[in-house]
Amino acid sequence: MTGPLKVALLGCGTVGSAVLRVLQDQAGDLGARIGRPVEVAGVAVRRPAHHPDVPAHLLTTDAHGLVTRDDVDLVVEVIGGIEPARSLMLAAFEAGKSVVSANKALLAEDGVALHAAAAKAGVDLYYEAAVAGAIPILRPLRESLVGDQLSRVVGIVNGTTNYILSRMAETGAGFGEALAEATELGYAEADPTADVDGFDAAAKAAILASLAFHTPVSAVDVYREGISTVTATDVARAAEIGCTVKLLAICERVGNGSPTHPGDSVAVRVHPAMIPTSHPLASVGGAFNAVFVEAEAAGQLMFYGQGAGGEPTASAVLGDLVAVARSRVTGAPGPGVTGYANLAVRSMAETPTRYHVSLDVADKPGVLAAVAQEFARHEVSISTVRQTGRGDAATLVIVTHSAPDAALSATIAALREMPAVRGVTSVLRVEGLS
Amino acid sequence: MTGPLKVALLGCGTVGSAVLRVLQDQAGDLGARIGRPVEVAGVAVRRPAHHPDVPAHLLTTDAHGLVTRDDVDLVVEVIGGIEPARSLMLAAFEAGKSVVSANKALLAEDGVALHAAAAKAGVDLYYEAAVAGAIPILRPLRESLVGDQLSRVVGIVNGTTNYILSRMAETGAGFGEALAEATELGYAEADPTADVDGFDAAAKAAILASLAFHTPVSAVDVYREGISTVTATDVARAAEIGCTVKLLAICERVGNGSPTHPGDSVAVRVHPAMIPTSHPLASVGGAFNAVFVEAEAAGQLMFYGQGAGGEPTASAVLGDLVAVARSRVTGAPGPGVTGYANLAVRSMAETPTRYHVSLDVADKPGVLAAVAQEFARHEVSISTVRQTGRGDAATLVIVTHSAPDAALSATIAALREMPAVRGVTSVLRVEGLS
Repeated sequence: MTGPLKVALLGCGTVGSAVLRVLQDQAGDLGARIGRPVEVAGVAVRRPAHHPDVPAHLLTTDAHGLVTRDDVDLVVEVIGGIEPARSLMLAAFEAGKSVVSANKALLAEDGVALHAAAAKAGVDLYYEAAVAGAIPILRPLRESLVGDQLSRVVGIVNGTTNYILSRMAETGAGFGEALAEATELGYAEADPTADVDGFDAAAKAAILASLAFHTPVSAVDVYREGISTVTATDVARAAEIGCTVKLLAICERVGNGSPTHPGDSVAVRVHPAMIPTSHPLASVGGAFNAVFVEAEAAGQLMFYGQGAGGEPTASAVLGDLVAVARSRVTGAPGPGVTGYANLAVRSMAETPTRYHVSLDVADKPGVLAAVAQEFARHEVSISTVRQTGRGDAATLVIVTHSAPDAALSATIAALREMPAVRGVTSVLRVEGLS
Repeated sequence: MTGPLKVALLGCGTVGSAVLRVLQDQAGDLGARIGRPVEVAGVAVRRPAHHPDVPAHLLTTDAHGLVTRDDVDLVVEVIGGIEPARSLMLAAFEAGKSVVSANKALLAEDGVALHAAAAKAGVDLYYEAAVAGAIPILRPLRESLVGDQLSRVVGIVNGTTNYILSRMAETGAGFGEALAEATELGYAEADPTADVDGFDAAAKAAILASLAFHTPVSAVDVYREGISTVTATDVARAAEIGCTVKLLAICERVGNGSPTHPGDSVAVRVHPAMIPTSHPLASVGGAFNAVFVEAEAAGQLMFYGQGAGGEPTASAVLGDLVAVARSRVTGAPGPGVTGYANLAVRSMAETPTRYHVSLDVADKPGVLAAVAQEFARHEVSISTVRQTGRGDAATLVIVTHSAPDAALSATIAALREMPAVRGVTSVLRVEGLS
């Protein structure tokens, strides 16, 4: 086999167009790096008339036919969504073709079955572009850190919510106002649900956790809270305690101690949290992404870059494409994904977290004691208390130590019922405090 | 072949001991990730009596015999230095064994020949640990970003000098004082030449440039200045213009325009420079390392983590070890290194840089005009001028636009000769200004 490797491109939106452009403009460089020329065999789209820039002879509406064509060697799937992407991917594997995908939703829902199908066929399935756009993070987890034991992976992996939270911090705006601005500037989609409610980040968290801990984790295993309930008060309170609010995707290996999960387990969650402004993730602003990794031997690592956009995502797709093409040339698939550790996924209720809570209270003798008693009753230990104001307008700002999330949320619920507490004005989890 | 993969460990210092410990303690996990058990076949050291913690039956002084033993599958070289590391590596390749190395000096001196020998033998040569310790940067360059066009790689890749410069900035100390402190705390070696004079960073720059630009670059191709001439005044001047001083390893692809190098070329250099405090590299403090990458499609990326130490370096070695072991299991080598682009290496004199220069001048009419004229005479354009003080103690702080380095250094030499200039108190290149 010395002819060119032929690539089937499924989908030609923002990312697909960028991939196609590079495949055509830099074919010489890519071929030299692969060790064999590479060319586009066809581009499957729903409406060929919408793609006047793509040479007509490449366009087809028959994606399945393209994927299974004998002369196609490799498949790039940038359609997104579950179907028909899944069926097309499985058809590609069955026909002995490796797949590069940017499809976080599909990989997070069905990664185990897809990896099994690829392994059975002896082909590659790579999807660096599915998490954090251009930032190389999946290959470092799969390969560079594969000789280490990871303890935590914490990511800012959704640019839309990071932009909104950054703007709220900069301008003091509320969520609604910042979202409207993001929509106007094109940082948020018309229906922003997938981003602001954390679905996008949860899919990415599932993928990160699967690779980091050699354990199958699906999107449904991920605890998820979005940012629509984050208020200007939350952001202001964060600043007062030297923190900033970020939507974090947190994947942790948790030691034993849980009665229902003997041995280690993993906890995977997406929620807004206050982090100290000195934390490397705190300065990741606007639409940028970053992933912070803690490993036993390597210590702390951070990966930073552009998390979205056609060109950055295309960079990740093309890196994977060169990798699977090299595998095709050598005749052996690249490293696969192992789920051998198969750790239990811990529920959010059992996951240790820390809370910040701000309370409006009357500054009367005994109020702090009563509040502290409520924390103690739930076996939640308090780290710091700060009281501001006097008389009827006093505010208590409390940061707890680590405790099971259920105990913390039960404490908050109980505080809301206390007569001495006029209102719970801000509740957010806190991460990254020593 | 279903028996365990056997590893020969060459060298058992800080890194080697850490590698050996993980290989023994986490053999189960590593085996599961490789797909076959892995065990240590032997450990070659110079003085077995110095290694009471290593099981005696593993120790040998016959490194060559160990490397070529029939039952050895993979070789880990953590001896360092040029010989005998090079001969042992070549012997390993000849015997069909893949090599994992942490040897930046050897790879920077002789990478082309070693890669050729590995490719000829159909085996792998990986050395993630050689640059920036635990930070995955070589694999991302070799694989993740292989579908992109890189324009710049800028690294803080030497922890000793970064610690010294950080302390100079924090305490106002001079170089000698900060070096003494670093030596006392174990951050600098008794003979700090390799670190403070930039040899270590230059070797890493050569490796980074080779991978980033698919072009053979050796340590001798790297322009190198160390930090021993950086003064407390330089550091204070940097702070005054919103900058901080870092020792940078800079690998750039430079467009055409050079009379002696038509077409693109690469420029690779190591020197101290002022960078804006807002630059992501500016906050990389103490013994940490970071590598900043700019690519055409991916945009700006940064990789951050611990750059040295036994455990972090072992993490990188073990990641590579799993990779080469997987190749051994599949029977096909992993992706190699291409030097196909083979770009010319531009001399420092022709490399575009920017300078900061502080001058003590008499505040007399015409002095600024005379100074500006000297810049113009060398075709160096000035970006900003700030004058502080009056009368006999005036200071001019000038930041230039980009110009060939030779023009800038000629300008400085001419300024030193000007009667109106009482002294050139600080000269440093500036990077990362927009």
